Formats: sequence, structure tokens, C-alpha cells
Amino acid sequence: MIDIPALPAHDPDDLVESAVVSRLAGNWSNRATVKKPEPDLDDLFDHSKHDYPEALIPFAEHDVYVGLPETTKDRIRAWGWIAFNKNVMDVEQHVVNPGFSLLAQDAFDTGMGDVLAVAVTQAMVDEQYHTLMHLNASALTRRQRGWAMPERALPFSATVRRRAAAQLGAGNATEAALSALAYMTVAEISITSYLDLIEDNESIQPVNRATVKLHNRDEYCHASIADEMAVIVFEKLKSTERRFFLDGLAAGMDAFSATDFSTWEAILQSEGVAEKDRMLDDTRNDRTRRQLVQDYTGIRSLCRKLDVEDEIGIAWT
Amino acid sequence: MIDIPALPAHDPDDLVESAVVSRLAGNWSNRATVKKPEPDLDDLFDHSKHDYPEALIPFAEHDVYVGLPETTKDRIRAWGWIAFNKNVMDVEQHVVNPGFSLLAQDAFDTGMGDVLAVAVTQAMVDEQYHTLMHLNASALTRRQRGWAMPERALPFSATVRRRAAAQLGAGNATEAALSALAYMTVAEISITSYLDLIEDNESIQPVNRATVKLHNRDEYCHASIADEMAVIVFEKLKSTERRFFLDGLAAGMDAFSATDFSTWEAILQSEGVAEKDRMLDDTRNDRTRRQLVQDYTGIRSLCRKLDVEDEIGIAWT
Repeated sequence: MIDIPALPAHDPDDLVESAVVSRLAGNWSNRATVKKPEPDLDDLFDHSKHDYPEALIPFAEHDVYVGLPETTKDRIRAWGWIAFNKNVMDVEQHVVNPGFSLLAQDAFDTGMGDVLAVAVTQAMVDEQYHTLMHLNASALTRRQRGWAMPERALPFSATVRRRAAAQLGAGNATEAALSALAYMTVAEISITSYLDLIEDNESIQPVNRATVKLHNRDEYCHASIADEMAVIVFEKLKSTERRFFLDGLAAGMDAFSATDFSTWEAILQSEGVAEKDRMLDDTRNDRTRRQLVQDYTGIRSLCRKLDVEDEIGIAWT
Repeated sequence: MIDIPALPAHDPDDLVESAVVSRLAGNWSNRATVKKPEPDLDDLFDHSKHDYPEALIPFAEHDVYVGLPETTKDRIRAWGWIAFNKNVMDVEQHVVNPGFSLLAQDAFDTGMGDVLAVAVTQAMVDEQYHTLMHLNASALTRRQRGWAMPERALPFSATVRRRAAAQLGAGNATEAALSALAYMTVAEISITSYLDLIEDNESIQPVNRATVKLHNRDEYCHASIADEMAVIVFEKLKSTERRFFLDGLAAGMDAFSATDFSTWEAILQSEGVAEKDRMLDDTRNDRTRRQLVQDYTGIRSLCRKLDVEDEIGIAWT
């Protein structure tokens, strides 16, 4: 294991240290999922279980869906899982790793040196491995079910599209970097609750729950790093930059809570569900439908630490 | 271990298979360096050894360098190693992984499905881990020598800059993708010879040689994947696209063989070497100086397989 002192000996002026980041950097090789043996996925596959919970299908109670043949419902659930995996992979590649990459280059001048670079570069290895895990999980579903269902039939999720739009709309490099940091922070601090939606559901394919559980274990550590780094960076920001970062957090939370109908539309289109437009319109307009639960307790607690809980324009519930 | 059949059962029309890619996808968890325990780098560090070979310092025989105090030469050698690591990391992040990412999305319509996606996504985990390994190696040098020497004092290497320029200059998305594939192919098929320059040198820091040796082991497998994929993609290209890909290979080889004086200039500037401009001018103009050896045997053998050995405009030597 690599010993990474909290305070590098070579730079006595470098006074910024973080016990959380140093500890996580130091124990990565013992805790990271990528360092563990690979599970035998095919052995875990149970053909009798659902690939995806109905609770996460926004139109599960609509008469069009309820009236579909069981095979079509099976296929839509398999698509739901493949879309879930694609969303996780897209977020890792296009939201999380670009944000960590900025921290690795110390784009925000934290002055933490190699401890920070090592901790976030480790996290980037984890994220690339999670991409592989979720790809393996989708490949397994395709193989065991005997259905093609390629990712490329699905669009990028709303989160990735909105993060990209925010990058393009940023007025300068600093704003772009702060927006990237904010989206990454929301992703890393709230992804565990998204993953819990699968992990805690006994009716679901055990291999899917195992994939999510392994992933989740790494993310608890990443949440600590993201939380700590948000505090350290925020300290150093000027007041206009702070405002920009907080707006980015609010935009990120809004993007992550949105139900992504473009993905469901592509799935229903691909399955040739005749009345898909009526069902999707009804679902969009259904005011009684509860939001897809995204738990922002972690972000709220971060905002409390930053003393901005009431300044961010979010009605915490 | 995950069993990945060469021919996915779910798509009987999917006839493209590759025994090489399937085998490497299937044994990744047993062979990948990221799956092994981390070496204790601090234990391997030998203060009496050089951090970087003089043979890789293009002005090592120039009277300005020869006349420098030994401490300055030690510092320049440490910088040389840190710059070598930075170059490896930049190439992984900005040349190799973007190329693999195109293959993972099957941007070239190989029809290989999950086998290809899994194999290259595994390779991307490896590359992200190599970035961590080389960062750890530089962090160790900084820590053990007690010198700051931050990467951010150094520019991107010529390879990364020229690859980026080729992307910006591409006429359309297909050309951009083919250029990205070509640069990745050159990087993955010739990087082992670049790494050998350190691995085989007994006068060099053992920890540096160990880092490179571990990295190299993964790269032999990546070279096989890159070589196989170049052949499969080339088969599917139209003749204008083939020409574009071959020009990209030639440009990539040229970029990778160039000695990067901008990096050396930044290093000598940082060390306050008074006569650096005269030394660099002399070195640039020295016709007897041999090129930094980059071994293109692998690319030549690929070109022979593609039956284009004489069409690529390279004087193989």
C-alpha cells in the first residue's frame, strides 16, 4: 500500500490538508471494488426474477402498460435495467470523471498537492470500473434473455444533456469549471440513493442487486471525497463564484430528479407499443404521480456546512 | 470470471467474431495489473540511482549540460521522469481512452457487439489505472527527493497537441473518428518500446523500472486488441476512408517520434539554466543526433497485414 502523508514533506508552505482525503487515498487498494475478484455473473442470474422494479417505471399503473402481454412487460423491464446501466455509465463518463479530472489538475487551486491528485485519480479508476461493471450487467441481461437491446438505441439521459448545455452556456472557463464541479458533487453525493432503489428490492434479479451493491460501496467513499472537496473549494471562492457554484448545485439536483421520458419513449418505440404517446402524455400530466425519489439529504447537509442551506433556492422536503 | 462467448447467442446475424478479443476479454480479471496488490513504492526507492536515463536526455552530451552542478543534473533527471510520467498520463487520457471509447460505442460498425465493448472498456480501466500508477510514481519522486516539481509547470506533449489539432482540422465526424482511431492504434502498438527505454536500464531507479514493467504487461494485451481492431475496421472502410486512416497512422508515428523540446524548455527554464537557449538550439540543429528511438515494428507488421506497407509513405528502417 502506498503511504501518502497528509502533509507532503517537500513543500512546507503547503498547509492545506484533509484527514478524510488522506485516509481514503491511503486505503484505496484495500477497499476498492476493482481490487476484488470478479463475481461469476452468469451463476447469479435468476430467470424468474424481474430485471427492473415496476416502482421505477413511471407508467407502471397506466392501463396501456397494464394491458400489455407479459413478454412485452418483461422486455420493457429488461430495457429499464439496460437504460439504468446506460445512465450510470453516461454519468460516470460525462459528469463524474470530468469533474474529478479538474480536481486532479487542482483547477481550483486548493494547494493540496499529490494527496488530492492521488485520491481523485483513484476515484476515476473506480468510476471507469463501474462503467465496466454496468456494461457487464447489461451484456449479461442481453445474453441470458437472448434479446439484442443495444444501448445505442437509447439517447443520453437528461442529466448528461443538461450538464453539457451548462458547459456550452458558461461565460468563461471558471464558470464552466464551477458548473462541472457542481454537477459532479450532486452526482457523487446523491448517487447512492439512486443505486439503493435497485439494491433494496427483493423482487429484482440478484445479479442486478449485487452489481449495484458493489458499486454503492465505492460511492460512499466518493461521497466523502466530493463533500470534503466542495467545502475546501468553496472556502477559496469569491462571492460571485460561490453564487455560481450554488446555482450549479441547484441545477444539478433538478436535472438528477427529472424522470427521463426521452429514454422511455425510445424503449416504447423500439417495442412497438401502439398507444405509447397517450400513455406518456398521461404520465407527464399526472400531478398525483410522485417524483422519482432522489434523496438530497447529503447535499442538504453539505449546504448546511457551507452555511447556505436557505440561499440555494431549494425547497428541501 | 465473466464468461463472454465469442458469438453472442442473442443475435444470429452477428457474424463478426475475433478469437483474440474474446480471449482477452475473458481473462482480464486474471491478467490485469489493476487486479494485483499494490507494490510498496517507498520500499523500492533507491536514493543512489538516477531517476531518468541520460540516454533519453537529448542534450546530455552538450557542454552546457555537462558543466552543470551535479545537483542540477539530479534535478533535471527527476524532472525528466516526471515529464515522462506526465506524457504517459496525457497520452492515456487524451489519445488512448478517447480512441477506445469510439470502439466501445462501435462507432465503426464492426458488429462485434458486447465482446468488443467489454474488451475495450476493460482496457479503459487499465489505462485509467496506469494514469494512477504514473501519478503515484511522480508523487513518490517528489516525496523522496523533497522537490516540488509539479506537472502543471509542463506543457502537453507534442503527440497530444498534434492529435488535438488533427481533431480540430477533421472535415467531418468520420474523419475525426478515423484520426482518433489511428492515433490510438499507433500509441497502443508502439508504447511498449517507449516503456522499454526505462524498463531495460539498470542504472535507473528500481521503482521507476517496476512501474514501467507493470504497465508494459498490460500493454502487450492492448497492442493485440488494437492490432486486431485495426484489421477488422479497415476491412469495412471505403477506399477514401482507408486513405484517411493510413494518413492518420503516418501522422501518429511522426508525432510519437518527435523529441518534445517544449517540455525540456519548460524544465530548463524552471531550473534557471542560464544558457538553455544555446543548448536547445544546438541540439535542435545537431544532424548527428539520433532520433529518439521509437520502434514501429508492430505498426509495420500491421501495415503488412493490411497490405499497405508501401502505400503509407513511411521509410521503414
